[in-house]
Amino acid sequence: MQLGILYGISVGTGDPELITVKGLRILQAADIVTFPQGIGNKPGVAQQIISQWLKPQQITIPLNFPYVRDQDILESAWQKAAEIVGKYLRQSKNVAFACEGDVSFYSTFTYLAATLKKLYPEAVIETIPGVCSPTAAASELQIPLTVRDERLTILPAIYTMTELETALDSAEVVVLLKVSSVYQQVWQILKKRGLLESSWVVEKATCRDRKIYQNLQSHPHLQLSYFSLLLIRVLE
Amino acid sequence: MQLGILYGISVGTGDPELITVKGLRILQAADIVTFPQGIGNKPGVAQQIISQWLKPQQITIPLNFPYVRDQDILESAWQKAAEIVGKYLRQSKNVAFACEGDVSFYSTFTYLAATLKKLYPEAVIETIPGVCSPTAAASELQIPLTVRDERLTILPAIYTMTELETALDSAEVVVLLKVSSVYQQVWQILKKRGLLESSWVVEKATCRDRKIYQNLQSHPHLQLSYFSLLLIRVLE
Repeated sequence: MQLGILYGISVGTGDPELITVKGLRILQAADIVTFPQGIGNKPGVAQQIISQWLKPQQITIPLNFPYVRDQDILESAWQKAAEIVGKYLRQSKNVAFACEGDVSFYSTFTYLAATLKKLYPEAVIETIPGVCSPTAAASELQIPLTVRDERLTILPAIYTMTELETALDSAEVVVLLKVSSVYQQVWQILKKRGLLESSWVVEKATCRDRKIYQNLQSHPHLQLSYFSLLLIRVLE
Repeated sequence: MQLGILYGISVGTGDPELITVKGLRILQAADIVTFPQGIGNKPGVAQQIISQWLKPQQITIPLNFPYVRDQDILESAWQKAAEIVGKYLRQSKNVAFACEGDVSFYSTFTYLAATLKKLYPEAVIETIPGVCSPTAAASELQIPLTVRDERLTILPAIYTMTELETALDSAEVVVLLKVSSVYQQVWQILKKRGLLESSWVVEKATCRDRKIYQNLQSHPHLQLSYFSLLLIRVLE
């Protein structure tokens, strides 16, 4: 019996209409729809995005991807998720995995796909690209992310401020993802370089409760949520 | 009389189904649909992408954005395009501008929007984000673009190989857009650094005639078209 297909579907950054036509078509045709489990009893971001698009007969399964750094815990969670998906693929059912943002861009799907490939080397996995947060944030800010010959550097999480300084020295546009935990240190560097007025924070881009902060001069101590991004235009 | 709205719609990288649901809805509701004029008598990329989605009653207008570096010629073309769009906005018609890739990511739309704002400061401009080429290419290659704490640098066009070396020194993933004119020089640097086997070329990502080159060891002299991208994973 032929295995079903695992589809990694990028569902965009928050606005349910930012899923692609292709992603929506494949999502709605899947027998089983999976997504990262939310924290506590709350639905996860991807789950919220797709809820309006699902058909009544579709089976939905939240998969647990814990927010920890312990490699053993992570690998055990990936293994469990891949076994759940594999069970349905063996029944020739197609499984969609809904992934916030883009499926290739700092995504949980990478681990699910890699683990599944270890369990079932013959499994067919297809990914559908989508809207990622840097371009979504630029649209919200009504500014271009990049133009002409501008170099763009994206830092997913900052461990040393030296990395930020290097990025600011060698790119015209720098985007810091998930900036909440280091915001105050970043703010000091932007102040030193005179970049506070050409920097923007976007929290939960394209979600209903999204927030924008511009002219960061007056915002040295923002309390930000997890999905917060900082966009710096170095040349302005 | 109220001005119409100018919508900058990201239509993705080539596959017509990679437009977002929101982009498609707004595209199909627009009175006037504009896009960058193709070269010679050929339809442009954005025009090809949207052709299957247009309604018979929609008026389509190609706008001329010449492929030159001369600032005077460019500004005169932007002015003319903005005047054409402005004429319809003054008639309270909504105008869509279809833009390949994402509208904030190295896009012609930036110049159209800026010029229109000079002519009509009161004009309302809305942009809808979409799929950009780096994530689309990663999906085609069936590899993640970025995971974990990987830093990503995107170079839109390379003027010195020093810039490439800097990027390779300070990021785990480097994407070179429009790599065709510098491919051979880039290849030499990748060879020197032992990165040819963790580099990929994607030509016309998600288009029907897209091509993929992996293991670049055997491809020192590729003749590539304009929409070619090189993805380098530095750590592998």
